[in-house]
Amino acid sequence: MFRLGFDIGGTSLKLGLVRLEKDKSACPELVKLLKRPFPRGKDPEVTVKAMVEMVQEISKGLHIDQIQTMGIAVAGSIDEKAGLVINAHNLGFHNMPLLDRMKSHFPDFKMALANDADAACLGELKAGALKGVKTGILLTLGTGVGGGIVLDGKLFKGGMGRGNELGHMTLKHGGPLCTCGNRGCIESLCSASWLISASQEPTAKDLIDKAKVGQAKALEIFQEYLDYLSSALASLAVFLDPEVMVLGGGVAEAGDYLFDPLRDMVEEKSFFRVHHRIIPAQLGKDAGVIGASYLLD
Amino acid sequence: MFRLGFDIGGTSLKLGLVRLEKDKSACPELVKLLKRPFPRGKDPEVTVKAMVEMVQEISKGLHIDQIQTMGIAVAGSIDEKAGLVINAHNLGFHNMPLLDRMKSHFPDFKMALANDADAACLGELKAGALKGVKTGILLTLGTGVGGGIVLDGKLFKGGMGRGNELGHMTLKHGGPLCTCGNRGCIESLCSASWLISASQEPTAKDLIDKAKVGQAKALEIFQEYLDYLSSALASLAVFLDPEVMVLGGGVAEAGDYLFDPLRDMVEEKSFFRVHHRIIPAQLGKDAGVIGASYLLD
Repeated sequence: MFRLGFDIGGTSLKLGLVRLEKDKSACPELVKLLKRPFPRGKDPEVTVKAMVEMVQEISKGLHIDQIQTMGIAVAGSIDEKAGLVINAHNLGFHNMPLLDRMKSHFPDFKMALANDADAACLGELKAGALKGVKTGILLTLGTGVGGGIVLDGKLFKGGMGRGNELGHMTLKHGGPLCTCGNRGCIESLCSASWLISASQEPTAKDLIDKAKVGQAKALEIFQEYLDYLSSALASLAVFLDPEVMVLGGGVAEAGDYLFDPLRDMVEEKSFFRVHHRIIPAQLGKDAGVIGASYLLD
Repeated sequence: MFRLGFDIGGTSLKLGLVRLEKDKSACPELVKLLKRPFPRGKDPEVTVKAMVEMVQEISKGLHIDQIQTMGIAVAGSIDEKAGLVINAHNLGFHNMPLLDRMKSHFPDFKMALANDADAACLGELKAGALKGVKTGILLTLGTGVGGGIVLDGKLFKGGMGRGNELGHMTLKHGGPLCTCGNRGCIESLCSASWLISASQEPTAKDLIDKAKVGQAKALEIFQEYLDYLSSALASLAVFLDPEVMVLGGGVAEAGDYLFDPLRDMVEEKSFFRVHHRIIPAQLGKDAGVIGASYLLD
């Protein structure tokens, strides 16, 4: 049997066709992946139309009853029960009834909606770096900073059902303005965007590559980034005392060059003064799509 | 039947004799409370000796088998299973086997050890402001800042059993030096100690009283304090999305003068932009003693 998982972000619409074995401990198989640019600046209905076409395209050759469920992950705050995207600033969705709109096209599918970092966290929990973990955190270091929390071995959806916004915890009171209107949020200092704006490099990878070969200015910026990120992780560590903290998103692709100094700095800053397990995400850019496919588990 | 609860802090040793009804929904009754100055600067054995005498004094007139359990709350990091106080900087306890020492005097008592903020949180959960709450936070604003977390209706002891140190999350990266060696911790900006050191008043209450009557300098300092505390609470709010955040400790005694502006500021700063329930603790200075008496529930 198959499941569909959408990952709707500010740059692209992604849809995965995921095969899940009955044995739930088996790893999911991403059979097909479709990707289209996000129709930026257009009416939300244009996005819905594109999503409908993608479902039709990916399910060609399959009987419709071979597809059981459709999960949709969105880069924004959502109301899970109402199937509503409350605010997705990068998508231009505000109080958008995305689930109802999709249901009007596919009335027979079971559907669910989630925040994209939560979906990525669910993917890592079911089939990646958080597998088997009871208390863990995922932080995605991309254009923004997203967060996912695992408590008692399950994705934690917030005490009041609003999920979490780890990226919008204050790291530097009075610091740089964040997209959310506050100052000094983790997102404003630990995102790939910070590396780009501090260095004027086209991507975070360019900056990190220059630091790796010892370019002085790049090294200095990367060191400052490590200082921010290690403080953020030390704060999360003394809050939940998690078994593991997983880093995903573009910046995490720097590998050991990022993780090795980071682990030492977090140990030094965390009140517990212990070694915290900090590891890279495993599902990479497909975490959102795979996690979305699990939303109706 | 009775239980004993110790609260061991940097200024005083407190011991409560608590009567608990069989009906666990009934409120605990603090039958007797003993208080002695903490033997500062002395060998930990002096503290143990004082604690033993306090137990003997409070249990006069009772049959020893009327006392079921003894819980001990300590202002420091503890190893619950080993019964060890790992670090209590204000007490001068380091890797101190407090439970074993007490057991050598009272071998028939069931005993347990906890961090003092965790014990206060347990007290508020069983009989105070957190009663019936599934997801909640307690922050004690005193000499330091302690934290307690309620998840799934129970006291959360940390994913790895180390508890939490909410007061040592970074609020202002690069900010003032904290007692823990880091900079800009919540404790360094939101404690009563910050109000005292910023104002040079003898107590936080003196500063708040002057702000209440409109003294300009005091008002300015109190406003800055509100700015820090509201950012801290907004950060905790977007992490756990709790039903309620409870404030205890000396500063919380400022009442509506603190809580009214604070609620508005947290709503404005929290990413969710919603009204968060922020209320005072109910057990006051006895929260630690009462919570400690519940440790063996």
